[in-house]
Amino acid sequence: MTSTPSKPASQTPPGPPEGSNLVPFVSVDNMMKLVNAIGVERVLTELADYIEDDFRRWPHFDKTPRVASHSKVGVIELMPTSDGEYYGFKYVNGHPKNTREGLQTVTAFGVLSSVENGYPLLLSEMTILTALRTAATSAVAARHLAPKGARTMAMIGNGAQCEFQALAFKAMLGIDAVRLYDTDPGATAKAARNLQGTGLAVTSCTSGEEAVEGAQIITTCTADKQYATILTDNMVGSGLHINAIGGDCPGKTELHRDILLRSDIFVEYPPQTRIEGEIQQLDDDHPVTELWQVITGDTAGRTAPEQITLFDSVGFATEDFSALRYLHDRLRGTGFFEELDMLADPDEPRDLYGMLMRASAASRSD
Amino acid sequence: MTSTPSKPASQTPPGPPEGSNLVPFVSVDNMMKLVNAIGVERVLTELADYIEDDFRRWPHFDKTPRVASHSKVGVIELMPTSDGEYYGFKYVNGHPKNTREGLQTVTAFGVLSSVENGYPLLLSEMTILTALRTAATSAVAARHLAPKGARTMAMIGNGAQCEFQALAFKAMLGIDAVRLYDTDPGATAKAARNLQGTGLAVTSCTSGEEAVEGAQIITTCTADKQYATILTDNMVGSGLHINAIGGDCPGKTELHRDILLRSDIFVEYPPQTRIEGEIQQLDDDHPVTELWQVITGDTAGRTAPEQITLFDSVGFATEDFSALRYLHDRLRGTGFFEELDMLADPDEPRDLYGMLMRASAASRSD
Repeated sequence: MTSTPSKPASQTPPGPPEGSNLVPFVSVDNMMKLVNAIGVERVLTELADYIEDDFRRWPHFDKTPRVASHSKVGVIELMPTSDGEYYGFKYVNGHPKNTREGLQTVTAFGVLSSVENGYPLLLSEMTILTALRTAATSAVAARHLAPKGARTMAMIGNGAQCEFQALAFKAMLGIDAVRLYDTDPGATAKAARNLQGTGLAVTSCTSGEEAVEGAQIITTCTADKQYATILTDNMVGSGLHINAIGGDCPGKTELHRDILLRSDIFVEYPPQTRIEGEIQQLDDDHPVTELWQVITGDTAGRTAPEQITLFDSVGFATEDFSALRYLHDRLRGTGFFEELDMLADPDEPRDLYGMLMRASAASRSD
Repeated sequence: MTSTPSKPASQTPPGPPEGSNLVPFVSVDNMMKLVNAIGVERVLTELADYIEDDFRRWPHFDKTPRVASHSKVGVIELMPTSDGEYYGFKYVNGHPKNTREGLQTVTAFGVLSSVENGYPLLLSEMTILTALRTAATSAVAARHLAPKGARTMAMIGNGAQCEFQALAFKAMLGIDAVRLYDTDPGATAKAARNLQGTGLAVTSCTSGEEAVEGAQIITTCTADKQYATILTDNMVGSGLHINAIGGDCPGKTELHRDILLRSDIFVEYPPQTRIEGEIQQLDDDHPVTELWQVITGDTAGRTAPEQITLFDSVGFATEDFSALRYLHDRLRGTGFFEELDMLADPDEPRDLYGMLMRASAASRSD
């Protein structure tokens, strides 16, 4: 695809290791091919294992807060983290007004690098990958928190994340029925259509109240950009698990405060969730449990059948890191990537200018 | 180069603007072709104008400190900034031990995005581009600080940055003679060879003392990773301009402290330079002048012939931003880029899963 600059035949040893200047790139097209070749549910399940492994290693991670650049119309963020072996970051924007212009609200890409030498190992689209990791993370949390034997999930908000959530809970928790509701019936119809033939019994509902009937798990993933009350207190019976995905930035929440006060709350990274999650409605010292401590067994998850558990998910850099690490491992032996000539590799590191001159000479002699 | 996933013929309006999912990518190969097509000296001069324009707009910039991830063997950094219209960041690593393995100490790439919609506009290699912007920045500073009529520059440290500095000072300040010195004679020989035929009179010297003889400008760009004394006090006569490039991280300096005490010191961004630059040797409140204020005319640059001016340069995110902005403008109408299918663009933003399913169906029908 790309061609490397021609080198003189007598390359001085040691010289750069062959191909070290080339960075594998996973395009949107190749990401879709890879996911379809493996199968969506299998990707979600395998990815969940990487995410859970990394949560288990939580203290090893360098957890930098995301670096945000705000403007009047949106935000651009960099989310870096490292486990000491790999370094990863995600670029992600959020521009709610983009949909009016036929553009995506969120686009994302990411890079995985070697901590040992600082070289990028992988560049990937991350819009699809983020949708997958968000659903896989929800299912990881629910594996530890949802009531045993849960079979029915209510899904309030039927946007881009909906089908991924449904399939992750089917594959990993044995959910066999989903009850869909969205303020836009078109979104519900889209999700119902997409979930046909997946083995899930799909019920389209006309209200949130109808959607939660008989459900043991409630997933909220609406896209409202303001404080909203997708779930009111009377909709949430005892013993439920709530998987709250949509509250993910300051000023954006989905649940009535009273629900939070009745729930045991589990979060990814408290300093971030207190700003971005549902718990921004609560006092700063309201007790929450970190998910990683449930996964390691340091803290209890669900302890009683009548308990309401709430996973207040905002998405964290380690989940993107896990996704990039999974992708890096899974790419091996496939053709689902291209190689980008992204890193300069002069034969003699100090001779960058000489490399430039030789490229000029080479192109003149073409 | 890349193929976009096939779309159904009846795309629902408004739909994503044509090609908005494609991100122009400038490989190392294309960067060299672009620079050679324009000419190195012209690139340096044009780039210097972008850098100077952005220094002039300094208060407009969102100046985030770089986000560093340190390990025992090196560092990986993200350097973001924005002027409210564009957003840019550079990824750069620093691994001194890499050269022993035939790898680069530093690799870099960067992204320029639209603040308006958050979409990346450009992905580029930045090893060559950083070398160019560093030299152009030095020349911008010298344009305001060096003694009038300077013709001879001493260059101590003849590594990857050397030739770019020499050509920037030739093109922008009228330097016609350079005096080279490096502790490794092989580096000096390399730089002298590369500068043949550029119109510069090149003198290879066997000591720093010899190199500074008759020079009006001294550029230090050594790669020592520790406190070093490349210039001692007695080597610096009155009236000189010192362009100190190599002191660029904590614990790495090039100049004897006494030189700093005799100089008027100009820096890019004091909070960063006090940590990384030559002035880490001085008290935290030692007076320094910000280069942008000299460029806008708010503060005087050189005020007397006998004054020693010192540009204590560590490299700042706005310079990378200027370089990406220049590249973005300069790419137009050239073929020196590829287009990467990096951003998912489902026809209906909420139907990411449907896009994935249709890709699967399309590949089965291939």
